[in-house]
Amino acid sequence: MTMHARRRFLVRSAAAVGAVAASGARAEQATPPGIPDWMKAPGADTGSQPYGTPSRFEAGIIRNIPKGLKQYTSASTRTPLQDLDGILTPNGLFYERHHGGIPDIDPAQHRLMIHGLVERPLVLTMEDVRRFPSESHIYFLECSGNPGFEAIKGKTASDLVGLISCAEWTGVRLATVLREAGLKPDAKWVVAEGADAAAMTRSIPIAKCLDDALLVYSQNGERLRPQQGYPLRVFLPGFEGNMSVKWLRRLNVAAEPGYTREETSKYTDLMPDGTARQFTFVMEAKSIITRPSGTQRITPGFNEITGLAWTGRGRIRGVQVTTDGGKSWREAALQEPVLNRALTRFRLPWTWDGQQTTIASRAIDETGYVQPSFEDLTAVRGLKSFYHNNAVVPWRIAADGEVANGYA
Amino acid sequence: MTMHARRRFLVRSAAAVGAVAASGARAEQATPPGIPDWMKAPGADTGSQPYGTPSRFEAGIIRNIPKGLKQYTSASTRTPLQDLDGILTPNGLFYERHHGGIPDIDPAQHRLMIHGLVERPLVLTMEDVRRFPSESHIYFLECSGNPGFEAIKGKTASDLVGLISCAEWTGVRLATVLREAGLKPDAKWVVAEGADAAAMTRSIPIAKCLDDALLVYSQNGERLRPQQGYPLRVFLPGFEGNMSVKWLRRLNVAAEPGYTREETSKYTDLMPDGTARQFTFVMEAKSIITRPSGTQRITPGFNEITGLAWTGRGRIRGVQVTTDGGKSWREAALQEPVLNRALTRFRLPWTWDGQQTTIASRAIDETGYVQPSFEDLTAVRGLKSFYHNNAVVPWRIAADGEVANGYA
Repeated sequence: MTMHARRRFLVRSAAAVGAVAASGARAEQATPPGIPDWMKAPGADTGSQPYGTPSRFEAGIIRNIPKGLKQYTSASTRTPLQDLDGILTPNGLFYERHHGGIPDIDPAQHRLMIHGLVERPLVLTMEDVRRFPSESHIYFLECSGNPGFEAIKGKTASDLVGLISCAEWTGVRLATVLREAGLKPDAKWVVAEGADAAAMTRSIPIAKCLDDALLVYSQNGERLRPQQGYPLRVFLPGFEGNMSVKWLRRLNVAAEPGYTREETSKYTDLMPDGTARQFTFVMEAKSIITRPSGTQRITPGFNEITGLAWTGRGRIRGVQVTTDGGKSWREAALQEPVLNRALTRFRLPWTWDGQQTTIASRAIDETGYVQPSFEDLTAVRGLKSFYHNNAVVPWRIAADGEVANGYA
Repeated sequence: MTMHARRRFLVRSAAAVGAVAASGARAEQATPPGIPDWMKAPGADTGSQPYGTPSRFEAGIIRNIPKGLKQYTSASTRTPLQDLDGILTPNGLFYERHHGGIPDIDPAQHRLMIHGLVERPLVLTMEDVRRFPSESHIYFLECSGNPGFEAIKGKTASDLVGLISCAEWTGVRLATVLREAGLKPDAKWVVAEGADAAAMTRSIPIAKCLDDALLVYSQNGERLRPQQGYPLRVFLPGFEGNMSVKWLRRLNVAAEPGYTREETSKYTDLMPDGTARQFTFVMEAKSIITRPSGTQRITPGFNEITGLAWTGRGRIRGVQVTTDGGKSWREAALQEPVLNRALTRFRLPWTWDGQQTTIASRAIDETGYVQPSFEDLTAVRGLKSFYHNNAVVPWRIAADGEVANGYA
């Protein structure tokens, strides 16, 4: 959008808002607000929170924790996407998926062992790891079951695709550490093991290990949280989240994958013909409208439609939005900078006429891939699969403004 | 840096690290680490923290709160820059500067009044504000007294320049809201007032208000924290932090500035000749090495030098680093993307020979401005000034590896 076009957009938008915002404002204008109580006495001391927390009025914005599970050792919580703005997820609201609970690791005792097909097996302390050259990147992380194919009955954006978050990660290139150990010629896979009670183990192709894979120790500026792998994790940009092994203790360089539980009985995609796709690493292009979204309510007039798009293949090229149930699609504006394998915020100005309708978004990535409808996706993949559902999410808007899951 | 050059850099660096990291690693390698206790039983439940907190082993990474002040109503805390990576500051560690304590504002009761030289005075609720078209940007925020000219005796990077942080801010363009109210022809200033006990009031030139100024309600994805102006603040990219009025309740559009306390007796720059500079809005280019930095200790061999650079004038063009007390300067690598008015992370590989030396960084911004030495800055500005000290910060490294303030 040129600056000139942008300016015209703002003028139009402001006028549209005027119909709604200003009407309320004018009603109140007869009685300018008085001095509120919180101006009449000093507030809380500076530094009263050595590590800050949100306002008590935002206490409801928390992880979306499923209720009534038989156990919470192997479970997940979702990011409240519909309550967030921008592209970054605060660490306190980053989605969780654990298979053996959250270990409480002493970083002084933690070790990373690198062995197998290497010239010089290594056992590194956290100090050793932090001494390597570092890099920082903003990347999304998404669970491959976000949602499962049968799990599209949720109410909110978080219920449906809340197993995605985005952060700035800092660490060392895995390639740098592997070169330090010295790869032997037949090194084709690296089997990564976590120090949790599940000993989560996944196999990573050597090409990814020598490309953009990181050993990460910091997230959004500070050290990783326990839920995200403190003190050390693998991070594989664009790959299914499960492979970015948390609480990393071991890298076994091998000629073959480990064929572990999490890449045989789980994290494979059962196809209609009974065969299964295995090692489906990359998270394909996807998007969701977060506002307005399920359980929210809108009123007629100007409503900005905004949401998130992402692709494991690189950058988002565009996002199209329909406000008429798929009959027509308009190009949304992408918030700059559009980053490689990060969430991308999109926005579209929209004036709602108060009639029932369905809205939805679809992402197009830099490879030209277009996010499919649920019908198109399942025509190929069937309904026996659980992982890698990246279908369009429709929201139905009722005449009273209530927004609901368009699948349900 | 081209990909090819980068590859060579990594190989060199890894070799350099080898001398140190691998030696420790090899010593340990005879006894591979056993199964740690935290793998022997399930960890904490998934979702046991609805809103997460850092590991208990990182409990020392908190805001840098001055001890023994007479009062904490008008005071500041600093971000622990030396303990952070990347460019983003977690909201819990964002620096604070309050003049009347931190108000506890109910967003449902909060109002923003826009009056003065406007066609349509407005009183907006938070819902009204959130209904306008939104934008998100990563920007730094810096207090203009970071540090004062007399306050360069601190020990850590945080002590010296910890009144700076960086976040992704979401809100509406101030210009959009002002157009909604309709500016009268003689509107030249907007006087912004906060809803704290100090009724913090600053005057903003209309050009800035119609340029990139925002009304911000979210920070790093979630709603603003109380310490940062919940539920609403002005945000003026690149301007001194004090002007980005928090807890915003009033915008008085005027022909003249308000000449308030905070732009007359405070936040002006007393020059050697006894006159004072007023309305010195822009924070000039600056940088600091955060690792290694004061109170840290290094050992000989490879040490990555890393730090932060920023400029209120736009983008950082380059950062130069000296490792020989200023005799020579080398170009550091800048972490991409280099964003407008955001912190920029720089890094330089360095092999320390174990001799006493002094290291420092200096930033150059896209206007060509070079961060001055303390001597050059004070030759012009004298020592009576308090604000806008953007001088180079040197770190002295002793032969035993102890890092200390090079000014002290």
